[in-house]
Amino acid sequence: MKTQQIVLASRPVGAATLDNFRFENTVLPEIQNGEVLLQGLYYSVDPYMRGRMNDAKSYTPPFQLGLPIEGGVVAKVTASKSPAFKVDDLVLGRLPWRTQIVASAKDLQKIDATIAPASNYLGILGMPGLTAYFGLMDIGKPKAGETIVVSGAAGAVGVVVGQIAKLQKCRVIGIAGSDEKTKLLKEEFGFDEAINYKTTPNIRLAISKLCPDGVDVYFDNVGGEISDAVISNLNFHARIPLCGQISLYESAKISMGPRLQPMLLTRSVLMQGFIVSNYQRRFPEGIQQLAQWIKEGKLKYTETIVEGFDQLPTALLGLFKGENTGKMIVKA
Amino acid sequence: MKTQQIVLASRPVGAATLDNFRFENTVLPEIQNGEVLLQGLYYSVDPYMRGRMNDAKSYTPPFQLGLPIEGGVVAKVTASKSPAFKVDDLVLGRLPWRTQIVASAKDLQKIDATIAPASNYLGILGMPGLTAYFGLMDIGKPKAGETIVVSGAAGAVGVVVGQIAKLQKCRVIGIAGSDEKTKLLKEEFGFDEAINYKTTPNIRLAISKLCPDGVDVYFDNVGGEISDAVISNLNFHARIPLCGQISLYESAKISMGPRLQPMLLTRSVLMQGFIVSNYQRRFPEGIQQLAQWIKEGKLKYTETIVEGFDQLPTALLGLFKGENTGKMIVKA
Repeated sequence: MKTQQIVLASRPVGAATLDNFRFENTVLPEIQNGEVLLQGLYYSVDPYMRGRMNDAKSYTPPFQLGLPIEGGVVAKVTASKSPAFKVDDLVLGRLPWRTQIVASAKDLQKIDATIAPASNYLGILGMPGLTAYFGLMDIGKPKAGETIVVSGAAGAVGVVVGQIAKLQKCRVIGIAGSDEKTKLLKEEFGFDEAINYKTTPNIRLAISKLCPDGVDVYFDNVGGEISDAVISNLNFHARIPLCGQISLYESAKISMGPRLQPMLLTRSVLMQGFIVSNYQRRFPEGIQQLAQWIKEGKLKYTETIVEGFDQLPTALLGLFKGENTGKMIVKA
Repeated sequence: MKTQQIVLASRPVGAATLDNFRFENTVLPEIQNGEVLLQGLYYSVDPYMRGRMNDAKSYTPPFQLGLPIEGGVVAKVTASKSPAFKVDDLVLGRLPWRTQIVASAKDLQKIDATIAPASNYLGILGMPGLTAYFGLMDIGKPKAGETIVVSGAAGAVGVVVGQIAKLQKCRVIGIAGSDEKTKLLKEEFGFDEAINYKTTPNIRLAISKLCPDGVDVYFDNVGGEISDAVISNLNFHARIPLCGQISLYESAKISMGPRLQPMLLTRSVLMQGFIVSNYQRRFPEGIQQLAQWIKEGKLKYTETIVEGFDQLPTALLGLFKGENTGKMIVKA
């Protein structure tokens, strides 16, 4: 079986470019017992993948030079030598960027496209939705009446964080990178206020004005100077679920900033880095709660879908230019 | 009743100096019902007091210009109009730096000098001991076999942290500022290893060598570059009780350093600022446990005692030059 694949051609220094990727044609081996042949339908591009392009120790190992990029993929079974899957089943897995894929049945999870569109399993019912749920509820521990600030608010995780915080009866302020996004946050997703960081000269002051009672939870997707501005407005006993640092992923050297510890110390602040897999054992709880809210119409979702397998590298790089609203997905 | 007192003459810019203090003679009013007259015996000087010399929002309000400095004091009752105290009772309170003090009985706590020397109530059985106990046990959550690094290890809090960590069957590495101190940590207080940061050219490397399994808990008393070095050696799921930032207290401007969030994020690290009063309701538990360990000979303590009420400003400033081992106390 012939397939097209996208491999890591070189490691980026600073901002990643299309030159770091290479398209190849290759031939897949016949499937063996316990394996299935898949046709890729939806490919996830996520900020954490930028870290895997570097040769650095992190919570996921680096991509290997010359081998396909890997990520979340929703695919259709086209041939099966496993009793677990039959032709036309839809599955989710962490899979290589290939148009046709040979996978072991044990690495796949069947999905039900009658509950939600198949692409949702890469977003609201997948990694980003669970990241929002566990990061906010388990680390942020929002209480009714508290003020929550979310950075990267129009991203795949941010829109879910804001809506869950509203369900906890909190005041929610989102930070995003365009007027279109801030409008959407307020009008579509129920955020109380939203700040366009690209047109706001003093973010620290803007937050201080929009949060007269201070900030109790800062859900951080971006890092850098936006985070400095929010952190200077924290209340005593504030919590910071540390989910992403997208503003720093493309930096070739270590980013410098004001030291955080004096602020965290004098205000008894908790900061907790996390990755969704820390909560693996509790995924069923998270999925059930998210599905329940969706069913009740309390949780909305949005996706930016780019058409064409060949657009995968461009879509991934687009995350770092803020080109997506909600979950960025490539449809093959 | 005449008394001598030490007031805040001016707020420091950068390092505090003796010029920021002024000695005065004044006359105290007669004691009223519910009040006692005290003679100060032991005066506590603590790093947090430097913060109170600034006019900045923190967990304790700033000292007022022209009014006496306040801190922990052990004193003897010399006259009483309260049924709670009689002459010659020993008491502990947060009191002004005066040789003779009028205080309300409700702000004082009687102490028992037959259990431990009276000065211990400013150290191991007081604020520093409880800070070590709750910070390590409640935030650090050390598990047997883990590696703990303590900065400011020879200070009032640090020596207790290290010993409690050893009681939890952890490997303990202390960081301090002289060979005399590192020797004491190893020979007197049972630390496994100790680093003299003043003579160690690459602290990051030194910690990496002494902690072949990485660092699971970093109890931070100092901040700055020492903390950067420890944090680069953290394990996945490490914990940082953020107790002090003595290296930064004298800085006139905001200290810059490498941003922490990428490291905390990729290793799922928890950092929690705290102040001992967060645990006020659990003080009896802490005092009981510390007293038990002392009684069993499992917990030792050391004090640096400076003689003379007039030495109080000098002793406080000495904390920031690392002049103390264990708890720094002034004996009137």
